[in-house]
Formats: sequence, structure tokens, C-alpha cells
Amino acid sequence: MDADTLVEDRRTGPADGLASWRDGPAREAVVAFVSRVCGGGGAPAVPVEQRVAVFDNDGTLWCEKPMPIQLDFILRRFVDMADADHALRDQQPWKAAHERDYAWLNEVMQAHYAGDDRLLKVFAAGLLAAYDGMSVDEFEQRSEAFLRTATHPTLGRGYLGCTYRPMVELLDYLTAHGFTTYIVSGGGRDFMRPVSDELYRVPRERVIGSTVSLAYAGGTITHTPVLDYLDDGPQKPIRIWSRIGRRPLLAAGNSNGDSAMLDFSRHADMPFLRLLVLHDDEDREFAYTAGSESALEQAGRDGWTVVSMKDDWATVF
Amino acid sequence: MDADTLVEDRRTGPADGLASWRDGPAREAVVAFVSRVCGGGGAPAVPVEQRVAVFDNDGTLWCEKPMPIQLDFILRRFVDMADADHALRDQQPWKAAHERDYAWLNEVMQAHYAGDDRLLKVFAAGLLAAYDGMSVDEFEQRSEAFLRTATHPTLGRGYLGCTYRPMVELLDYLTAHGFTTYIVSGGGRDFMRPVSDELYRVPRERVIGSTVSLAYAGGTITHTPVLDYLDDGPQKPIRIWSRIGRRPLLAAGNSNGDSAMLDFSRHADMPFLRLLVLHDDEDREFAYTAGSESALEQAGRDGWTVVSMKDDWATVF
Repeated sequence: MDADTLVEDRRTGPADGLASWRDGPAREAVVAFVSRVCGGGGAPAVPVEQRVAVFDNDGTLWCEKPMPIQLDFILRRFVDMADADHALRDQQPWKAAHERDYAWLNEVMQAHYAGDDRLLKVFAAGLLAAYDGMSVDEFEQRSEAFLRTATHPTLGRGYLGCTYRPMVELLDYLTAHGFTTYIVSGGGRDFMRPVSDELYRVPRERVIGSTVSLAYAGGTITHTPVLDYLDDGPQKPIRIWSRIGRRPLLAAGNSNGDSAMLDFSRHADMPFLRLLVLHDDEDREFAYTAGSESALEQAGRDGWTVVSMKDDWATVF
Repeated sequence: MDADTLVEDRRTGPADGLASWRDGPAREAVVAFVSRVCGGGGAPAVPVEQRVAVFDNDGTLWCEKPMPIQLDFILRRFVDMADADHALRDQQPWKAAHERDYAWLNEVMQAHYAGDDRLLKVFAAGLLAAYDGMSVDEFEQRSEAFLRTATHPTLGRGYLGCTYRPMVELLDYLTAHGFTTYIVSGGGRDFMRPVSDELYRVPRERVIGSTVSLAYAGGTITHTPVLDYLDDGPQKPIRIWSRIGRRPLLAAGNSNGDSAMLDFSRHADMPFLRLLVLHDDEDREFAYTAGSESALEQAGRDGWTVVSMKDDWATVF
């Protein structure tokens, strides 16, 4: 491929496709970055094959409160399993799911934040058992059926309506300027794949996320009860390299688990942009910084662009 | 993405870009398959996003005898290490590399074929140590420098000249008909990436291959001395699923390690094609079936298309 023949040289105007972004420093940073990438300001345009943008999913592209959408999917699976096998009702995590005991789930997270992962291991063991032996095809059918029918517990909308409109606009804006967009999520890769193209125009081959180890036999790929990797923290740049083989120009996240990915997206010789979405809009979404403390600190130190949902977004959903 | 708007409906003519293929059953199978995918014969064309073609590399796209090209790269690394550290000269595999003791290397492979992998483990331990701590950037620089300068030991050409012209034509032919092409190699993913676009028009993000586990710190990704996975046998369909999330329509290989990938590329409701390259041309390349015995058997049973280098290819390089 001859990079030069593919270089886009479009200039970006202030009104191009970012209608849900209010005027302000975040929007200005995005427009200025894309303009530089496309050759605005006199520097050579960046060849399109190097225009890679990576996005965390939960809390960055769609809602993650009161619990990550995939957690709702998993809890329903636990309920189904406990309905089918009564013995499970006395064991965690099925017991909590069966009894709708959110206090136990909270306890898991509180202990985790306090550095004690014993309960998290109990939960993870249940999770790994929940899909053991299931084909990737069946898993996707279940994931898609759930995503198309389940509704958010408090926002009064289906889960597919929980994507952030400004971020979807940003994905399209980048694509229109020659970027290739990827999802790099701590959530399950195969959980998001059935809807990623429809929601984000990110096709399934550009979804990077966590996964269990898979097995192959007789034409079918199935889940094993062993974690392959959790695509979070330092694993994010590693998975980006493994899948793409390039260092992104733009990385967007919202939590501590995204810091390494944002850090990785720094260049000595090309424009780059790191975005950190700040959940500060209790009226339209949620307001929280738990799990983002060190990322917010690093944003201040390293010049990452903090995107305030309250101030920078005219519309959230 | 609306698949229908992207569907290619070009018909394929017999002379389109396969000039190095002789008329015969292999060429006919390729042309008929591509025609069906594009809607020839009355069935609906396959949406372009589902037109995925996967290719093994060593022995399928380029030469793997008298030894895989990457093995030459690794042996040179062992020689350099033994030059720098005399103590290594008494240890395998550095000893064999330093002394150009190909008998020991043959012994490794003979024992492996006989089911005894003790020597292979010694070799693998050396391999894993050889790049421990090296950044992926430096590894690629070394790989690229080697591939651009080293020459094949017997064919009288540089390694970059060891690609099979008919297969490169096939890759381009598929691309021209809306396919997305991937390399799925048992060799090292990062070894091939620096040249895959130039050789095959397969960009680095579409190279799937073996890798060690990587580590991330301070903006740099480095090799660890731990194998992540060997992309061979049943791992090939697993890695295809992990990376692409689709079942290919076309799979091409040449050895037993490719059988699972070819097997995976069967469809109930779409055209598909499995190609097995047969090395039967001692005059122009090499003649061997060692390592391909079970694949050749399965080709007969399952209707895979065997591509005879001697009969089906007018030109090899």
C-alpha cells in the first residue's frame, strides 16, 4: 500500500459532525488534533494507516452504572442456572443472584477496592463456570438477545440506548477523517461484538476485550473455564499491539484501567490526543470518580484532555 | 454498516489476475468459488464483510525449506549471543548455532517427529531467552533488517524474493473481489509484520501468528521469556476467531498444522474453499510431504483442493 496515495487532506471545520459537543476546551482539542493529523497547520498529514483511535467501552462509550451492562447479563445467567439447579442456590455467586442480594455484590466490590480479592475470586469462579463448554456462537446469540431486549434499571431506556451520543459522533468524525477506530474494553470481547457495528460502526474484527481461553474441536469453538486475559491496565497496550501492531494516535477512557492505554498513545513525532471522560453529571447520567482517582491525577500531570459530561456535552444519550 | 450497499457483484473472468496459474482444476476451483461468492450462478452474493480469506505463511505463501526463514533469523541471533558470551558456546542451542552443527538441529526435528520433545524444549528455552526483555520495536527492526538483507541458502535469491507468485496473485485477486485477507502463521507474528504489506498487501493488523507474552511499562512493550501461544493446529481457528470473529470462506495451508484452520472454514450456507499447497516441484522449489501426511489424507476425504506446485503453477517465484 502506498501511504501517500491514501493520505486524506481534508480540513476540519468546527461544525463537522460534533453537534452534541458544546464549544469548549475538549471540543477544541478534538478539532485541533484532527486538523493537525490531516495536515492542518503546515505539518505533513499523518498517513491514514497510522490514524488509529482506541476507545474503552464501559463508562467511555456507554453507561456503566449502577453496574456494568455485562454484569447484568451475567447475573441473569446465574439466576437461570440457580433456577435449573437448586443446589447452586446455596453457593455464591448464584445465591446472591438468586436472592437478588445486591449487598453481597457490593461487598465483593468494597473488598476489592480495599485490596482483598477473596470474594472477587468466588465471583470469578462462578463467572468462568457459567459459560464453560458453550460455543462462541451460542454465547453471542445470548449476548445479542439480552442487549436487544434488556433495559437499564434507572435510566428508562434499553441498553442499546445507553451509548453516549457525543462519543458516537466522535467515532464517526474520526472515521470521516481517515481514522480506523477500535474498542479496547475491559469487558468481554465476544459480549460486544454482535452490536458494535450497529452502535459504533466498529465491526467485530476491531473489538478488543477480555476473554476466556477457547478450545477448538470438530468445527466448533467453545469457552473453557480458564481466563485468557483481562484486558485492563497494562494489558490494554499489550492487546492493542497484539491486534493492531501500531501505537494509537488517540485513546479515550474513563478509569484507572485505561491509564496505561492513554499513556501508550504518546508520540514523539506525530499529533496525539488522550481523552478522559469525567462522570460529573448526576442529572443526566451519574456522578462518580471512584475507580478513576489515579487516572484523573495523571490527566493533570500529563496533559490529558478531561471531558466533562456536564460541561462539554450538550446531549448525553 | 449496511452490508447490502457494499456487496460486490463483479463477475470473474478466467484471465483476471491469475497469470501464473496454469489452466487446471485448482485454478478452476478458485475462479468458480470467487464467482459464486460474487453472486455468479444466481445465488445471492456474500456480503463483503463476510469475505474473509486466511493464509498460512511458511510453505504456503513463501518458501520454508531447507529451513523456515525465521529459523535462520533465530540461529543468527544464537550465533551473535555466543559471540558475545563465550559461556553460551557450551550450551545448546547456542553450541549448535555457533558450530554450525546442523546435525543437532536435525536431531531436534527427528526426535520431535518421533514424539520425543525433550530436545525441542531445549531449543525453545534458548529461543525464549534470545529476545527476553527486548522491545517489540527493536525486535521488528532486527527482523526487518534481516529480511531485507539475508539470502536463501540454495535458491539464489533474497528471502523477500521467496514468495510464491501465484499465491501473491491469488491474494490480490481475492482483494479485488471484496475479500479481506489475513495471514495466520505458525511463525512469529511480529517477525512478519514489517514486510507483510509490501509482500502480500496484508497490513500488519491482519497478521496473526505465534507470540511470546508481552509486558508493558513506561510506554514500551517488551518480550518476556514465556510463550503466549503457538499459532498452529487447533490454535489457528481459535486465533482467527479471537482476531476476526468470523469463520473464513477461504483457507489455504500446506501442512498438518493447517488442517484445523481449513476444517474450520466450512460453511453450511455459503461458498467456501480449502486449498492445500503440495510441494512436488523439486526442480523449481522443493519436493516433500513430511509434516503434511495427515493433511493430504484429509484433503482426499473432505474435498480440499490440492494445489500442485509442479502442475498448477506456471511460475513459482
